[in-house]
Amino acid sequence: MSFFPDARILDIDLTKEQVTVKSLPGEIYRLYPGGSALGLYLILNEMEAGVDPLSSENMLVFSVAPLTGLPISGTSRVVVTTKSPLTGTIGDSQAGGFFPADLKGNGYDAVVFKGKAQKPVYLYIDGDKAELKSAEHIWGKVTGDAEKIIRDEIGTDRLEIAQIGPGGENLVKYACIINMCNRANGRNGTGAVMGSKNLKALVVKKAKHLSAYNKEKFSELTTNIKERMAQSPAAEGMREHGTDGDLLGFHEAGFLPTKNWTTGFFPEGAKNITGATMTETILVDRDTCYACAINCKRVVEIPEKVDPLYGGPEYETCAAIGSYCGVTSLETIAIANQLCNMYGLDTISCGGTIAFAMECYEKGIITQEDTGGLELNFGNSEVIPILISQIANRQGFGDLLAEGSARVAQKLGGEALELCIAVKGQELPAHMPQLKPAVGVIYAVNPFGADHQSSEHDTFLVMPADSQERRWLAQIGTWKGYDDPFQIDDDKVRFAFDSQCFFSILDTLCLCQFVWGPCWELYGPSDLVDLCKNGIGWETSLFELMRAGERRINMMRYFNSREGFTKADDKLPERIFRPLPDGPSKGVYLDKEKFTKALDTYYEFAGWDVETGNPTPATLRKLGLGWLIDKDK
Amino acid sequence: MSFFPDARILDIDLTKEQVTVKSLPGEIYRLYPGGSALGLYLILNEMEAGVDPLSSENMLVFSVAPLTGLPISGTSRVVVTTKSPLTGTIGDSQAGGFFPADLKGNGYDAVVFKGKAQKPVYLYIDGDKAELKSAEHIWGKVTGDAEKIIRDEIGTDRLEIAQIGPGGENLVKYACIINMCNRANGRNGTGAVMGSKNLKALVVKKAKHLSAYNKEKFSELTTNIKERMAQSPAAEGMREHGTDGDLLGFHEAGFLPTKNWTTGFFPEGAKNITGATMTETILVDRDTCYACAINCKRVVEIPEKVDPLYGGPEYETCAAIGSYCGVTSLETIAIANQLCNMYGLDTISCGGTIAFAMECYEKGIITQEDTGGLELNFGNSEVIPILISQIANRQGFGDLLAEGSARVAQKLGGEALELCIAVKGQELPAHMPQLKPAVGVIYAVNPFGADHQSSEHDTFLVMPADSQERRWLAQIGTWKGYDDPFQIDDDKVRFAFDSQCFFSILDTLCLCQFVWGPCWELYGPSDLVDLCKNGIGWETSLFELMRAGERRINMMRYFNSREGFTKADDKLPERIFRPLPDGPSKGVYLDKEKFTKALDTYYEFAGWDVETGNPTPATLRKLGLGWLIDKDK
Repeated sequence: MSFFPDARILDIDLTKEQVTVKSLPGEIYRLYPGGSALGLYLILNEMEAGVDPLSSENMLVFSVAPLTGLPISGTSRVVVTTKSPLTGTIGDSQAGGFFPADLKGNGYDAVVFKGKAQKPVYLYIDGDKAELKSAEHIWGKVTGDAEKIIRDEIGTDRLEIAQIGPGGENLVKYACIINMCNRANGRNGTGAVMGSKNLKALVVKKAKHLSAYNKEKFSELTTNIKERMAQSPAAEGMREHGTDGDLLGFHEAGFLPTKNWTTGFFPEGAKNITGATMTETILVDRDTCYACAINCKRVVEIPEKVDPLYGGPEYETCAAIGSYCGVTSLETIAIANQLCNMYGLDTISCGGTIAFAMECYEKGIITQEDTGGLELNFGNSEVIPILISQIANRQGFGDLLAEGSARVAQKLGGEALELCIAVKGQELPAHMPQLKPAVGVIYAVNPFGADHQSSEHDTFLVMPADSQERRWLAQIGTWKGYDDPFQIDDDKVRFAFDSQCFFSILDTLCLCQFVWGPCWELYGPSDLVDLCKNGIGWETSLFELMRAGERRINMMRYFNSREGFTKADDKLPERIFRPLPDGPSKGVYLDKEKFTKALDTYYEFAGWDVETGNPTPATLRKLGLGWLIDKDK
Repeated sequence: MSFFPDARILDIDLTKEQVTVKSLPGEIYRLYPGGSALGLYLILNEMEAGVDPLSSENMLVFSVAPLTGLPISGTSRVVVTTKSPLTGTIGDSQAGGFFPADLKGNGYDAVVFKGKAQKPVYLYIDGDKAELKSAEHIWGKVTGDAEKIIRDEIGTDRLEIAQIGPGGENLVKYACIINMCNRANGRNGTGAVMGSKNLKALVVKKAKHLSAYNKEKFSELTTNIKERMAQSPAAEGMREHGTDGDLLGFHEAGFLPTKNWTTGFFPEGAKNITGATMTETILVDRDTCYACAINCKRVVEIPEKVDPLYGGPEYETCAAIGSYCGVTSLETIAIANQLCNMYGLDTISCGGTIAFAMECYEKGIITQEDTGGLELNFGNSEVIPILISQIANRQGFGDLLAEGSARVAQKLGGEALELCIAVKGQELPAHMPQLKPAVGVIYAVNPFGADHQSSEHDTFLVMPADSQERRWLAQIGTWKGYDDPFQIDDDKVRFAFDSQCFFSILDTLCLCQFVWGPCWELYGPSDLVDLCKNGIGWETSLFELMRAGERRINMMRYFNSREGFTKADDKLPERIFRPLPDGPSKGVYLDKEKFTKALDTYYEFAGWDVETGNPTPATLRKLGLGWLIDKDK
């Protein structure tokens, strides 16, 4: 192969129903090598600032990467990039499954949607054939039903389908995009953008996947994965109990966000809803993405109530629907998970918004009059499925909650504003900045709102210096260890930024963090360089990759700056700065003064203006993004 | 081995004649992994600002690196770090040979000299035994004679000796340190610092060298070196004609600095003094450093006149003594080279200073009265050996020239100031910024004065995108190619800075740029990562290495800022900005306005204050150098 492959892009004007194939030269693609880096390159070139996210002017990009679909764990992920209706920032949302490998297998690196279809449509891709088909008959259907109809219609099961449910159709601000009925491009409300465009689904025919550039060397990476897993309790734990395996541990340490983050301690429910309990009770299978050996995905079944088709809850879902809401019933969580996957809703924002409403209810800010009679006390499992259906269908009280906690808080005003646990309008994932200040910094600065998968977590820095995790973290610039995770200093901020750049290149290359992140002990940064070389013949380096990761982050911040976002939007909920009330973490809080200083340090380290929090022209130019300044001059 | 090896440091107080062995923990050494990075770490920790370079307060550090002496080409180099008496900045000077591998083989990563011996001494190292011995009987001897006496005295030829000659003893500002009688820590006047300390030599007994951590994988790097060389005309050319192989080509392009840089065209002499002519006439052998397959070193002989013991001239020597001075005689150059190696003088500064004096003489600024009757016309070969001897012995007119061109120009004042071709008082090496603007930027900003081996050269960027050079440059951040080398834009400045960081880590790890530089097609950046891993078990990345390189550059600039240096000292001679008068380069000049803008861009990209040119506190902290700010607060 050549220096770097060209990108093949399917460019779709929904308004005109035009489908065009475009090409981006390899020397450009190499700088924006997939994922939202590629998405942003296209969006920043073509879309003006200030568009309404739910208008036809918004662009929506599905993208993979040159590595997508290689026969090795963690290479089948797809990224959706668009202006987010939830946050108003750039939106970026990632999902796994088989869809990504098959999209790439059909020969495309990205699919770009512009405009708005007059009537509901879906896109069907079968190699060079790509056509828009009517979706009027499936509009309004939940994901499982729609999937079945599409399969019947096309006449084969050999399809992968990424679609919205009623949540996206009804423009729920945190509607997601679902593939396999259980994998979600979850966050940022990308499903609502599809809905606003009358775009129900992307359907790709199964296709031959990428084969490795250097098969012999490539096999050196893959052959020992079982050994690597056996040596990694973390990875083995992921297989055994899924992402929910650590829930009990978080509670026991006092850092499981509970009852809308009023505490980190959930004695009445943690054990019920942790991964081990799921394994023992409702788990019927473990599922995988294309070519992946980990099997982290859960498949649960509760006869008459929960269909294995809809997978099983992740840790984030167990926390957001469970501990956030004080819900102790794993069954309720499994049902809620199924509903969110049927309707196409992000479980984190959904649970976070309900938890927020519950605290408002308990404090009398919201009453039964507002809720149409529903009792929104913490721990009331019964209202959860009702609320989720109301939200997805924008019925009753759900119509308000469909706007997300930040907009509801704005509407309610007063004390409600303090109870909203979100950054840039996006509800916090279930990792507490009180325990992990570097994650807190990233929650604050991350361009698309609070996100727990955009950097490495502080807790790994307490491991021994010669542990695999620390050895790999040293490759990406983190040499310092800590006695406890709570500290915050220059080295911690550097760790936050450098690991953010590394996670950014993982996201750019559409790689799974559970496989390629430095702390799952399977593949480390140096292996990533080998993957690029032997997978596609790309002779890169970790220097080039880290800089590409940094470039993506800066493009995102630049996008946001065009939309008027500044440092003022980089703030954590006040609750994070107040002492936790009980349990093992009693009295622990994030020191606001130190945190604010850390934020300034972060801007300095990132090369951003400390007054505005936006990338300086020099930083953009250093990263090869001078064209943005020239373009928007 | 562990995470990273500890550094073993020999700490010598010459005043008290105390020899102490110290250890620097691996977790610190990893951040300053050898060369002048290690030297600066020690100096910045222990030495105050403002010391006289030739006083006992100055520290002098010889250092190698964890990789030094591995059985592979290009790993035997030693760096000397001290405050330079020539420039007043940090001084950094590198040399090859066998001395470096043997110093490391004796178990030391660095030897630090402090204070001043009461009488001349030399240090003798034989494993754990390290002692100061009297050098009174060899003080005043030229290198070849001193080496013989030391060998006889210790009673073995199995020694490596790094020493000064009369040049260093007499505190010539550009005195160098010579090992093997023909390898030089050439620049920055480090030999004068030795002389000021009454330190004649470091003598190390031959020792068992480092063996590879992973022999099997390591051999994958070494076994194909002959193939690599055969595939690389550049590397093969280095063997065939040495560094002087390109001289004729520079002349033919019009970029061979000639007659004190008044022209780039040397029709009357270029062919006489180019490498091919040397090969055909006086070359009797090719020499090598420890374990190196290249054989770039020349050995020349002229019966009764030039002894092979003193090696043969490099390109820089042929240019500085030859074209700079208008000297067309290869014999004169060979004699001058021998004299410089006997007396211990840097050939570049020596030639540059004589050339400067010659132009002053031709312009009447200096007269025969000043020179003691010598006729200093360009092209007068006869005066060259006379002047070199006078300089080394500080006799006659040579006593003035021993101060270097910048100090002479200051003394003469007026027009002479414009004829001085130096940056920060160090004479320019023979690569013209008119052809290579990125090299010009580095000449200007390099912390220890004009240097041609601190970054990659613009001329490689005109090669095809899929050439080995360009593929390797892409690994260190340079993706853009050019139709010609003259252009200067953001991408070129990024190339200057990134390649400077890469060359900085090569210098830190004490690796030869002719082997490990990206443009000699032998080993590239990705091989360097493999070298660290399989050579010593250091699982690093190019990200970590590039940052360590950047850290060293910032430590140097920080050192300089303590000494009062600023952006105002980062300036090229005005002559560079004026059109060349004749030959193929007629009319070519470096655009001053563009160049000045490029300098500002460089400071921005480096994270330095654009007003002062010094590293900002944020940049220092990002690089893990916050301790410097705290220390000097």
